[in-house]
Amino acid sequence: MRKIDGGVTAAKGFQAASVAAGIKYKDRMDMALIYSEEPCRAAGTFTTNLVKAAPVRWDQQVVSQSPYVQAVVVNAGIANACTGSEGYGYCRETALAAARALHIAENAVLVASTGVIGMQLPMEKLKAGIEAMAPRLDGSIQAGTAAARAIMTTDTKKKEVALQVEIGGKTVTVGGMCKGSGMIHPNMCTMLSFVTTDLAISRELLQEALREDIKDTYNMISVDGDTSTNDTVLLLANGMAGNDEITEKNQEYRKFCQALNQVNETLAKAMAGDGEGCTALFEVKVVGAESKSQAVTLSKSVITSNLTKAAIFGHDANWGRILCAMGYSGAQFDPEQVDLFFESRAGKLQIIENGVSVDYSEEEATRILSQPEVTALIDVKMGDASATAWGCDLTFDYVKINADYRS
Amino acid sequence: MRKIDGGVTAAKGFQAASVAAGIKYKDRMDMALIYSEEPCRAAGTFTTNLVKAAPVRWDQQVVSQSPYVQAVVVNAGIANACTGSEGYGYCRETALAAARALHIAENAVLVASTGVIGMQLPMEKLKAGIEAMAPRLDGSIQAGTAAARAIMTTDTKKKEVALQVEIGGKTVTVGGMCKGSGMIHPNMCTMLSFVTTDLAISRELLQEALREDIKDTYNMISVDGDTSTNDTVLLLANGMAGNDEITEKNQEYRKFCQALNQVNETLAKAMAGDGEGCTALFEVKVVGAESKSQAVTLSKSVITSNLTKAAIFGHDANWGRILCAMGYSGAQFDPEQVDLFFESRAGKLQIIENGVSVDYSEEEATRILSQPEVTALIDVKMGDASATAWGCDLTFDYVKINADYRS
Repeated sequence: MRKIDGGVTAAKGFQAASVAAGIKYKDRMDMALIYSEEPCRAAGTFTTNLVKAAPVRWDQQVVSQSPYVQAVVVNAGIANACTGSEGYGYCRETALAAARALHIAENAVLVASTGVIGMQLPMEKLKAGIEAMAPRLDGSIQAGTAAARAIMTTDTKKKEVALQVEIGGKTVTVGGMCKGSGMIHPNMCTMLSFVTTDLAISRELLQEALREDIKDTYNMISVDGDTSTNDTVLLLANGMAGNDEITEKNQEYRKFCQALNQVNETLAKAMAGDGEGCTALFEVKVVGAESKSQAVTLSKSVITSNLTKAAIFGHDANWGRILCAMGYSGAQFDPEQVDLFFESRAGKLQIIENGVSVDYSEEEATRILSQPEVTALIDVKMGDASATAWGCDLTFDYVKINADYRS
Repeated sequence: MRKIDGGVTAAKGFQAASVAAGIKYKDRMDMALIYSEEPCRAAGTFTTNLVKAAPVRWDQQVVSQSPYVQAVVVNAGIANACTGSEGYGYCRETALAAARALHIAENAVLVASTGVIGMQLPMEKLKAGIEAMAPRLDGSIQAGTAAARAIMTTDTKKKEVALQVEIGGKTVTVGGMCKGSGMIHPNMCTMLSFVTTDLAISRELLQEALREDIKDTYNMISVDGDTSTNDTVLLLANGMAGNDEITEKNQEYRKFCQALNQVNETLAKAMAGDGEGCTALFEVKVVGAESKSQAVTLSKSVITSNLTKAAIFGHDANWGRILCAMGYSGAQFDPEQVDLFFESRAGKLQIIENGVSVDYSEEEATRILSQPEVTALIDVKMGDASATAWGCDLTFDYVKINADYRS
């Protein structure tokens, strides 16, 4: 498995385009179009929020019912959430406009939106954007990168990754792009992730691979505990790598799952590390757990604790807040068995042993916590299960961005 | 029922004292002692955090096993949490010191601590503090107020209330004081509340009255979602009002419950409105719910949403975030039936009707949201149940206080 340049256009047959449609932002790209030369099998996972944005409902239907998918239309600025039947109608209109421009079926078009909740999309601008993008579709790395930039909202960095792996004697590429500052996402109300591959694989296994993998990747990041109405991960596979179609859970399937995991983990961590206003990626590894679910509950409780996040911002080894967050998580464990270490590229330091502070150096701890990526390693000494969650610190800028946002 | 001046010393026979013991703060009172001339029946409710501070474990045992209680020793600065068996031993030492100074039994002394997690208490200072306070116990309003100040940590205001009600032909007083910026508390890791009354009531009914009432008061406030290791509410009743002891759930019992509710609600709202760094008390009322539990889940989800809290700080009518927080709460409802109003002393304004924005004035909304107390009124139109939760906005100062705290 090797990392290569590029993102959503890295896999064979995938093209992208972007445009400044003027939906809400001035003077910047705010729409992207992803297109596959060949029809794709599609898998998707979506927000668990009861309030689902219109594009989520549209995509759920397309992914479950359409025989194939060939394009995705994405816009930034307006989320098309809480927009009633009018908003759902605009998803259909968007798909229809793309279908006409690309000469494909309406139900082969997925749509995704990110931005303000409650506003209606300016459909004339969207349609004009689609018409401008369709003739400019392009399979270059640059076109993929431009698309990754066009879908950003409060993101400060574009997020893309691609890698290649040999499967069934063929070189298979998996690439993707995403936007957002969290699965549990702050401001613009969305995590969107688009992963493309030229692998040939059955629809069922494609969906299963995605469903399993998000548990360890997107579902393990958090910026602020607010689960969006729009969260969407789409995975498109067009089969152009030429491998024999994967139809069972053999070694080839597992190789793909590993590649998919690396792509998804890279994108997920990029979102956590670009959380609104954040200065550090905060990783929490729980080991020695009785079960996977216990490890997940504990690590996510720490990663979402405002107090712990504020302490990370202050480079303060405030371990009491970590134990406190574990204690209210709902998971059972013995506080008097817990060991805790802080780790970063500046070193590794034990902070507590069996629930009580060891005689560590606060200066050394602060030095370790002053890096842009810091890890809390927690051993609960009950078994062999583990889990890793990613978040970020809570900063002045987080408050500023979210207090100011709509105005 | 009438409000009177005073707090924890308002009820007959209750006295208080405070002292600057130098536990962690310099030049301020940091210990308080509450004493009743007559033995009290005691009720208590405590944090649900698996990590329970030593004083919580001590008090749980005293409340459940001691025949009566006569004093409470409180310190600010150090929480005595995550301190192992050494820390628990210090609770016993504290109780013993107070028992000697007051000539009462060791198991008639409750203790409560608030402050940093993980540090051991300086016992010599604590014992000297107790010896200094015991001869200065005083039943005046001023002594109660001084105690309310002594137990503060990051609080900006002392919090106390007292009221009188006629029960069984006698005037009964219920008074209390508390500290903390949330049941689900930010920084110094504790909500502590002490309520005293001269009512005569059976131990079982005293505990039941408290257990029921916290569901609508302390358990309905939140500052930051972090449930403390030390949260404690203690209710002491010394019977000195001279009423016939309440032993059944008659009209007199219900009168007391109403008085208790008013005291507890006042104290709970005072904590939410003094949340760390906050500029506004934020009230969320859910009406038209199918069940009380649904209304509680919905209102608490909104009150703990960082995004909603940041919007309140920005005086922004960002109703999408409120619907979003309701959607991920886990409660079932129809988003397309929801009505939402904002209300404050500047007026009342409908924002959404049946899940979609009405044509409201953003200026008017901002004017309403710029008050120090703002309410979101949410009707889910499914039934007759309702619940009210209280929180506060998320501000720069919250981050500042919690990033800087230990240093």
